[in-house]
Amino acid sequence: MRYSLLFGKTRKTAPHDEESANARLLTRAGFIEKMMAGAYAYLPLGFRVLNNIKRIVREEMDAIGGQELLMPALQSKEFWAETGRWEKLRDVMYQFKSRGKELGLATTHEEPIVHIVRQHISSYKDLPLYLYQVQDKFRNEPRAKAGLLRGREFSMKDLYSFHRTTEDLEDFYKKATEAYKKIFKRCGLDAIVTQASGGAFTTEFSHEFQVITASGEDTIYFCAACGWCQNKEIAKVKAGDKCPACGKKIAEKKSIEAGNIFKLGTKYSHDMKLMYTDDDGKRKEVIMGCYGIGPSRIMGAIAEVCHDDKGLVWPRAVAPFSAHILTINAKDDAMNSEIVAAASSIYDKLSKGGVEVLWDDRTEASAGEKLNDADLLGAPLRLIVSEKTLKDNAVEWKARHEDKASMVELRDIVKKVEAWVRE
Amino acid sequence: MRYSLLFGKTRKTAPHDEESANARLLTRAGFIEKMMAGAYAYLPLGFRVLNNIKRIVREEMDAIGGQELLMPALQSKEFWAETGRWEKLRDVMYQFKSRGKELGLATTHEEPIVHIVRQHISSYKDLPLYLYQVQDKFRNEPRAKAGLLRGREFSMKDLYSFHRTTEDLEDFYKKATEAYKKIFKRCGLDAIVTQASGGAFTTEFSHEFQVITASGEDTIYFCAACGWCQNKEIAKVKAGDKCPACGKKIAEKKSIEAGNIFKLGTKYSHDMKLMYTDDDGKRKEVIMGCYGIGPSRIMGAIAEVCHDDKGLVWPRAVAPFSAHILTINAKDDAMNSEIVAAASSIYDKLSKGGVEVLWDDRTEASAGEKLNDADLLGAPLRLIVSEKTLKDNAVEWKARHEDKASMVELRDIVKKVEAWVRE
Repeated sequence: MRYSLLFGKTRKTAPHDEESANARLLTRAGFIEKMMAGAYAYLPLGFRVLNNIKRIVREEMDAIGGQELLMPALQSKEFWAETGRWEKLRDVMYQFKSRGKELGLATTHEEPIVHIVRQHISSYKDLPLYLYQVQDKFRNEPRAKAGLLRGREFSMKDLYSFHRTTEDLEDFYKKATEAYKKIFKRCGLDAIVTQASGGAFTTEFSHEFQVITASGEDTIYFCAACGWCQNKEIAKVKAGDKCPACGKKIAEKKSIEAGNIFKLGTKYSHDMKLMYTDDDGKRKEVIMGCYGIGPSRIMGAIAEVCHDDKGLVWPRAVAPFSAHILTINAKDDAMNSEIVAAASSIYDKLSKGGVEVLWDDRTEASAGEKLNDADLLGAPLRLIVSEKTLKDNAVEWKARHEDKASMVELRDIVKKVEAWVRE
Repeated sequence: MRYSLLFGKTRKTAPHDEESANARLLTRAGFIEKMMAGAYAYLPLGFRVLNNIKRIVREEMDAIGGQELLMPALQSKEFWAETGRWEKLRDVMYQFKSRGKELGLATTHEEPIVHIVRQHISSYKDLPLYLYQVQDKFRNEPRAKAGLLRGREFSMKDLYSFHRTTEDLEDFYKKATEAYKKIFKRCGLDAIVTQASGGAFTTEFSHEFQVITASGEDTIYFCAACGWCQNKEIAKVKAGDKCPACGKKIAEKKSIEAGNIFKLGTKYSHDMKLMYTDDDGKRKEVIMGCYGIGPSRIMGAIAEVCHDDKGLVWPRAVAPFSAHILTINAKDDAMNSEIVAAASSIYDKLSKGGVEVLWDDRTEASAGEKLNDADLLGAPLRLIVSEKTLKDNAVEWKARHEDKASMVELRDIVKKVEAWVRE
């Protein structure tokens, strides 16, 4: 993509009504635009990042046998009344009347998925079953000031698992935990598996995936020695106490909950009569698990964790572009033509080879503006083509997360970038 | 995918509350599940079709310079009050109050896109600009009985174009028309460009893309000789009249509106002060066009048009699977192992080669059930592996839209399918 054609320009200052680092940075860099508190538009750059995260999530869900489907956001009261959650969720679920009918916007999808599954399964042979969707959810947040971390409309991957036995649920729960670890790792985040409240349905813990950062809304107690971690909401320890698992010291950290997984047991199957016929001929309630991860929240968490005072520093797998070429305008027209020709050749070859490249081809922008914008945007690799680099038949190479730049010969640059992308 | 693992089984009968052919067929075949009137879940098969349509739409929008972004469904009254449409759209837009704030669900996105664009453009150098999204919209339909053709929640691609001059809008409008024709053709639909009301903003026609089918809700007057076509809503002709363009006879047809394109002019730019500075230094209003096409409605239209009395007949580019392998169980165990081994080898090779294959590997289903399900599902190519075909070292090959089957030798089948997919 040529920057001159890209929609969504950088801004010198962040909007005064944005408090969170993620919203300030992402808005300044032209990735998102606030439409109301808690609801953002994703401009082309932000849309690319969000899509990269969704792709990673989908790949890991497919890898553990997940089948993707898509449910509506619009809900009638009907199924939610079966579990009593139409009333229970009233504070967080947008609910309204239309043409005499009570409607709502889904904050989660247990009731609809259980309804669908009860239409389609009958026997133990239909189990286990893993269904997921990547879909936009709604939540009537009283305050929505944390940018992408706490939206009124947000993207969510929700997977539901259906089992014959508790052991089978346990097995899949472990698989899902590993899949989640992979997702966070691929997204460049270090997420800590944290014990949390199991909710109303079980005395067991649920597990959250917490990303440590000073701006987090959650508090966790964490043992760096053995990895033991509990959410403050359930913890019976405090900072400095001995770890109940290994005896080393526990630290208190602020963190962002970026995913959570629950054993639901038979709560929903029971209320909504989701049954199967077992091999002994008896009708039994299906055992369920649910697994949530928010692509938009992950995007916000990455922005919180992966930035410096100059701007965003995208992990490679989620970056909107892998490489950002800057052409620095020279005073001399002939030299400018040479610069553009060299950059254009690199840009074409990389693009054809499948590398996502942004080329800042603006003729009216100064070197300083281009360098600042590149740092703010945060593509992992910056390549500069200028009069100075061409004198040495070279391109300046600099990784966003490193301080030092180096020179790469023109004839080697395409191969070197391609190798770096595959690393 | 193995059919034994696929979620979403076929049903013998359609739900009694579904009137439309598309909802009856798609529900029976396990593609969709009704969650409330006008809101459907897409099961894995249906999700694949919907995604194929969205991919085609995206490719054609990218090809004419469209940049994809994503806007929220949740809307505050603010921007819509600027154009007066908060009141005007009250009948079709879900609107409700929450925490003292008036909120709505977007039925369309002119106001939000104009707000975003006015934050980011300033000069004539920023024009033209083509922005689109593929997003779920909501519409408070009084009756929603036409399956995917008229949803309360539905998928929509909306593109907005921004221009400096009317000529530039005209040029792009023609390009968009051609792109839309390509989309419908790739989706296997014959869509007729139809003159329709330009709405309140212009005396010119807008253009609809109408798919002729007896179950359509629209009526068009159509000249088969020259292609002239008008929606009944604006037509001053009737069936049998002379075509105003070529003088031949006009026919009246029922049809489904599957896309529409509008010249908006400066209606929204004026109301919302979307201005740019021209090269003469003057501030001017941006000239706009908008271009809508509904992937879920296209899916419904395909189901209406492309079926026979046995079931769906998917056009290749949108089919959930290209090929559907059926293994017919033999009485003899050793023969069954041979059948499974042969099918498994074909399935693995095709899958590795990137062909989307469904394998009906059920051991408990009869040949009749498998054949009926394959016809109902409607994959373009059916391959049968049975005791009978293996005696000839062959596979039975049958295209869904043809009556005759033929035999293809085992050693040729993979290559032949691969060549057929590329056709």
